[in-house]
Amino acid sequence: MRVAVLGASGYAGLELLRILLRHPVFEIAAVTSEQRAGQPVGDAFPALRGQLDLAFESADPARLASKLDLAFAALPHAASAPSVAALRRAGVAVADLSADFRLRDPALYREWYGDHPAPGLLAEAVYGLPELHREKVRGAGLVACPGCYPTGALLPLAPFLREGLLETTGIAIDSKSGVSGAGRKLEVGYLFAELDENAHAYKVAAHRHAPEIEQEASALAGSPVRVTFVPHLIPTIRGIVTSIYARPRRPLSAAAARELLSAAYRGERFVRVLPAGETPRLASVRGSNFCDVAAFVDERNGTLVLLSALDNLVKGASGQAVQCANLMRGLPEETGLLEAPLAP
Amino acid sequence: MRVAVLGASGYAGLELLRILLRHPVFEIAAVTSEQRAGQPVGDAFPALRGQLDLAFESADPARLASKLDLAFAALPHAASAPSVAALRRAGVAVADLSADFRLRDPALYREWYGDHPAPGLLAEAVYGLPELHREKVRGAGLVACPGCYPTGALLPLAPFLREGLLETTGIAIDSKSGVSGAGRKLEVGYLFAELDENAHAYKVAAHRHAPEIEQEASALAGSPVRVTFVPHLIPTIRGIVTSIYARPRRPLSAAAARELLSAAYRGERFVRVLPAGETPRLASVRGSNFCDVAAFVDERNGTLVLLSALDNLVKGASGQAVQCANLMRGLPEETGLLEAPLAP
Amino acid sequence: MRVAVLGASGYAGLELLRILLRHPVFEIAAVTSEQRAGQPVGDAFPALRGQLDLAFESADPARLASKLDLAFAALPHAASAPSVAALRRAGVAVADLSADFRLRDPALYREWYGDHPAPGLLAEAVYGLPELHREKVRGAGLVACPGCYPTGALLPLAPFLREGLLETTGIAIDSKSGVSGAGRKLEVGYLFAELDENAHAYKVAAHRHAPEIEQEASALAGSPVRVTFVPHLIPTIRGIVTSIYARPRRPLSAAAARELLSAAYRGERFVRVLPAGETPRLASVRGSNFCDVAAFVDERNGTLVLLSALDNLVKGASGQAVQCANLMRGLPEETGLLEAPLAP
Amino acid sequence: MRVAVLGASGYAGLELLRILLRHPVFEIAAVTSEQRAGQPVGDAFPALRGQLDLAFESADPARLASKLDLAFAALPHAASAPSVAALRRAGVAVADLSADFRLRDPALYREWYGDHPAPGLLAEAVYGLPELHREKVRGAGLVACPGCYPTGALLPLAPFLREGLLETTGIAIDSKSGVSGAGRKLEVGYLFAELDENAHAYKVAAHRHAPEIEQEASALAGSPVRVTFVPHLIPTIRGIVTSIYARPRRPLSAAAARELLSAAYRGERFVRVLPAGETPRLASVRGSNFCDVAAFVDERNGTLVLLSALDNLVKGASGQAVQCANLMRGLPEETGLLEAPLAP
Repeated sequence: MRVAVLGASGYAGLELLRILLRHPVFEIAAVTSEQRAGQPVGDAFPALRGQLDLAFESADPARLASKLDLAFAALPHAASAPSVAALRRAGVAVADLSADFRLRDPALYREWYGDHPAPGLLAEAVYGLPELHREKVRGAGLVACPGCYPTGALLPLAPFLREGLLETTGIAIDSKSGVSGAGRKLEVGYLFAELDENAHAYKVAAHRHAPEIEQEASALAGSPVRVTFVPHLIPTIRGIVTSIYARPRRPLSAAAARELLSAAYRGERFVRVLPAGETPRLASVRGSNFCDVAAFVDERNGTLVLLSALDNLVKGASGQAVQCANLMRGLPEETGLLEAPLAP
Repeated sequence: MRVAVLGASGYAGLELLRILLRHPVFEIAAVTSEQRAGQPVGDAFPALRGQLDLAFESADPARLASKLDLAFAALPHAASAPSVAALRRAGVAVADLSADFRLRDPALYREWYGDHPAPGLLAEAVYGLPELHREKVRGAGLVACPGCYPTGALLPLAPFLREGLLETTGIAIDSKSGVSGAGRKLEVGYLFAELDENAHAYKVAAHRHAPEIEQEASALAGSPVRVTFVPHLIPTIRGIVTSIYARPRRPLSAAAARELLSAAYRGERFVRVLPAGETPRLASVRGSNFCDVAAFVDERNGTLVLLSALDNLVKGASGQAVQCANLMRGLPEETGLLEAPLAP
Repeated sequence: MRVAVLGASGYAGLELLRILLRHPVFEIAAVTSEQRAGQPVGDAFPALRGQLDLAFESADPARLASKLDLAFAALPHAASAPSVAALRRAGVAVADLSADFRLRDPALYREWYGDHPAPGLLAEAVYGLPELHREKVRGAGLVACPGCYPTGALLPLAPFLREGLLETTGIAIDSKSGVSGAGRKLEVGYLFAELDENAHAYKVAAHRHAPEIEQEASALAGSPVRVTFVPHLIPTIRGIVTSIYARPRRPLSAAAARELLSAAYRGERFVRVLPAGETPRLASVRGSNFCDVAAFVDERNGTLVLLSALDNLVKGASGQAVQCANLMRGLPEETGLLEAPLAP
Repeated sequence: MRVAVLGASGYAGLELLRILLRHPVFEIAAVTSEQRAGQPVGDAFPALRGQLDLAFESADPARLASKLDLAFAALPHAASAPSVAALRRAGVAVADLSADFRLRDPALYREWYGDHPAPGLLAEAVYGLPELHREKVRGAGLVACPGCYPTGALLPLAPFLREGLLETTGIAIDSKSGVSGAGRKLEVGYLFAELDENAHAYKVAAHRHAPEIEQEASALAGSPVRVTFVPHLIPTIRGIVTSIYARPRRPLSAAAARELLSAAYRGERFVRVLPAGETPRLASVRGSNFCDVAAFVDERNGTLVLLSALDNLVKGASGQAVQCANLMRGLPEETGLLEAPLAP
């Protein structure tokens, strides 16, 4: 099957190429980048030198459509929607990595991102977290791949919300992310000299992934959920570890919490529930599509502590997009995604 | 004034030497280490080569006492108390960096550390967080320097607890620490190959600093405080950033929270309250005795978010010990401690 | 085909498992570790949790032999030879990652490592750098996989030595290595707090890989080559960049040097000769079996500067071992080794 | 004495402020930055918040002159010379950290940097490596502070060149530098995601510091010296380790090499000659004005290996500038510079 990567010159695009290069069914037919149009991929990404004999081209969705079975859109928000719309008009399935189709409510999108560029497509879009919405993703025409933070927050929270076990106000979500989540942006704060040996919170309770988490958490709980989401930057390239602090509605033992989590993800290929006492570590998921999760209860005051770790560029972006694309095209979900983590 | 550093071969000891070498009043009269007795300091710590013409000696508190005005004890818990006791018997003032005299209740100490080796000294010991207990530290004979995590948790929490503004159960304290907090211990998890590009929680709701935080927080609040404390290891050498999630008893605006914090630390040399919107960063405190703090309120659900950053080896250990020692010996509190952070 | 990994609890062993898990022909039949015998692999290496349903076993080469087509020995030097000998006696092909069969001269081995434990096998052993010895590796029964430093030094040097272009005394080889090359050893110098933000030379002109480089370089040149090899430790987990300073016997232009290198590696899958002006970077080879090389000439004084970059755990160890094993068992050389580098 | 820092918004400027804040004699009277004019220093550099009650101003050398005893110019090359000229006309002593007055030959400057903006001042300028030119620096009006790489190369080479012990062609200088040497420049290659876990050579035999090294090396040797200088970027913020490969003209023992180095720097405060077997490490000089050096001889082929380590922002830039300024104003050379390295 032939696929294209639109907006392939950022980190999510590069990671898509890395995964697709070894995918046994998807074949990379085109890669686009406005800035780098005409440049061979290996010149832009020396790591891929000799791996992929393609040059970036300027995106022309209509022309591309004819030769594609599916497109991955790794474009910035707002820039993505028009390309996605053109591809959908031409009948091409799209796995969109931008934020454009994640929020179902255009008013909420406006609040956090600005006017929605293609509200007519929202009805069709499926939120692409396969562990929660597998059946909808299967065969969908447009999948909105979740943000990296929501993936790490929702996977451990889902079983508890679904069972109505948690107070729905004041769930605190504390995430620590590597810098590749910010993309290849040239900002002083992302320079090595500024970030190594550094760490800090940012966008405290003001990050765009909070409404996305709340949308899905509310759907799971069946009632509005309000979270306090505080992302932090830590000196790693990849990875997000998340610690979630929530109050159970009724006393919950550590063993019961672990069992609920284990039962929920039994049989899932990409969610690993850790044994008692182990905590999720970035080093155990680097470069892989795994999300490791664990549950603890602070016995002294009843607080539930949920932990997760994932690679923001894989399970938090491009790996998850391929996982969705596999489902969209009727392939086994794990196709091309079973590579072991790079450790150490 | 002549001082000694007992247990000088670990990171807290090395940091004490670094600070004391430039201290205008304290003179390093002796450094002890059982393992390294006889070894010149410069051989053990090449960074200090040519800086300090002393060799480690085996600790003999009684003999040392006669030539000292004050001793810093940077020994492991349980090992510290007997040396401290000997020094106190000989009339030497001691700033103790171990955990031995931090918890006022020997039963609580037993629960977390084992039988207390010198309970008779607990009555005399002052908890050495000068911003909270300055008058007691001034002139004290025995000061228990706080743990690194408690310092970063208590400084931002104190004004809110003192005013009775917070619900006292379920305060979540999420700390991210560099690895020097673990000392120079040889464990696989502290190897560069294991820790770089890694991050994870550890001792979830089971860290020894939790009861220490609760002891001081309860004293501030005037009623028992229960916290859920989750420390994380991140790939930095130094530094702790802490994010605290607490529920105000009555609605609290972001501006009011900031103002309370500012008012509480006006005039303090080592606590910097950041302007609105700024978040504490390790890179702004590295190598210095500052603790940067900030307050935010998640307006959407009322949660108070308190942030702090400090260098665990300075304000979290050796710098604070010198700050206490200055007060104990009647010197201006900031003596030898005004070095600017090493940035970048 | 069934393979075993002997000594699988170190980093080279772990990397072998990571590669073999995706290898389409080799199947992991057994993993051994004396220290970890009985422990499930996923407990020792959480990254592999759920990936490999095997426990470490104590090595029993004779028993293992019956069920193996090939064995990888990732044991320490001296410990490896006896196991290799037992496997060879039982007719099992062995790719040995230790130093035991790299040096052809047992007297040289004695000088650097001690008495050789199985000199009788030296005649059979082939030096497993496929780009130099492909025909001998093909079908060999015992292959000595090169050290990580020699691989990075020999690949760029080989074409120049083979043509007799270089003065053979005083070639300076300056390598900078990540710390995983030292294995999972518990030494203070490998702690994160000691190594991050640090870098230093070690074993100056006294590293065991020097005689190995000289053996192969001399064979290429047809006369004795003497190098000055200085390894450095830098704060990365993986990777070695090497810069080589050599004097051409007659004037050599930069263009001619590049062309010689390009011609030598045309058609090679794993050696990428970079275009003029580009320098090999660890970030372009991380996690992959590539060795990137480049040639420069300092026009002002005629010095030839050769550069290389490789991942010490892949092309410098386990990837190269699999490359050799593929040849040994008649598979296409690149089988299971075409994974793209992990970038960023 | 009142001093100003011109161009204080880069890393060298920030480091000057850090050092000057604790200097007992120099008082910071003004800090300039065109981009940040009007901004309080603490807003630009949060690390200095509360430390320095000044705002950046636009540089007006003539106006500044009246209130200064000395100026530090930390401006880019070519931009520095005109400001320096204005200050000199007004009689102000200047320690210039740019490249503008390092090369004595304007033709050489033109070749590497472009037309010289103030050739008339070259005669007055003194090359500010106090260990080599102390008497000229003392009382000088204009000092050109050396580049970071030349400092680390020249200090270990000097004694050997001065004695005529080395072949003067083909000395290979291999330096590994942290990224702060590039300043606060926004380039993709300096992003954390690009540089962490990475390392590579750059400007191979084409770096501007090569002619500077050759100028001083030739003066020491009394005849033209030609070096091959290859800088590398490694993932550290600060620091340069340099390994130098040179051929002695006549056999030189390791002991003799060490003794020559020791003798040359006996009594120097900032150059530490390490004992036999120890290698200079970034971690031992971080944040300090030390340059650690060591000499080895590869006994097997006679090559001399010289090693050094320094903090590029201190001994490689701002610390050395203060060392020069102390001499220029008649203060003890080490004033304000004895801070111990930050370790770990």
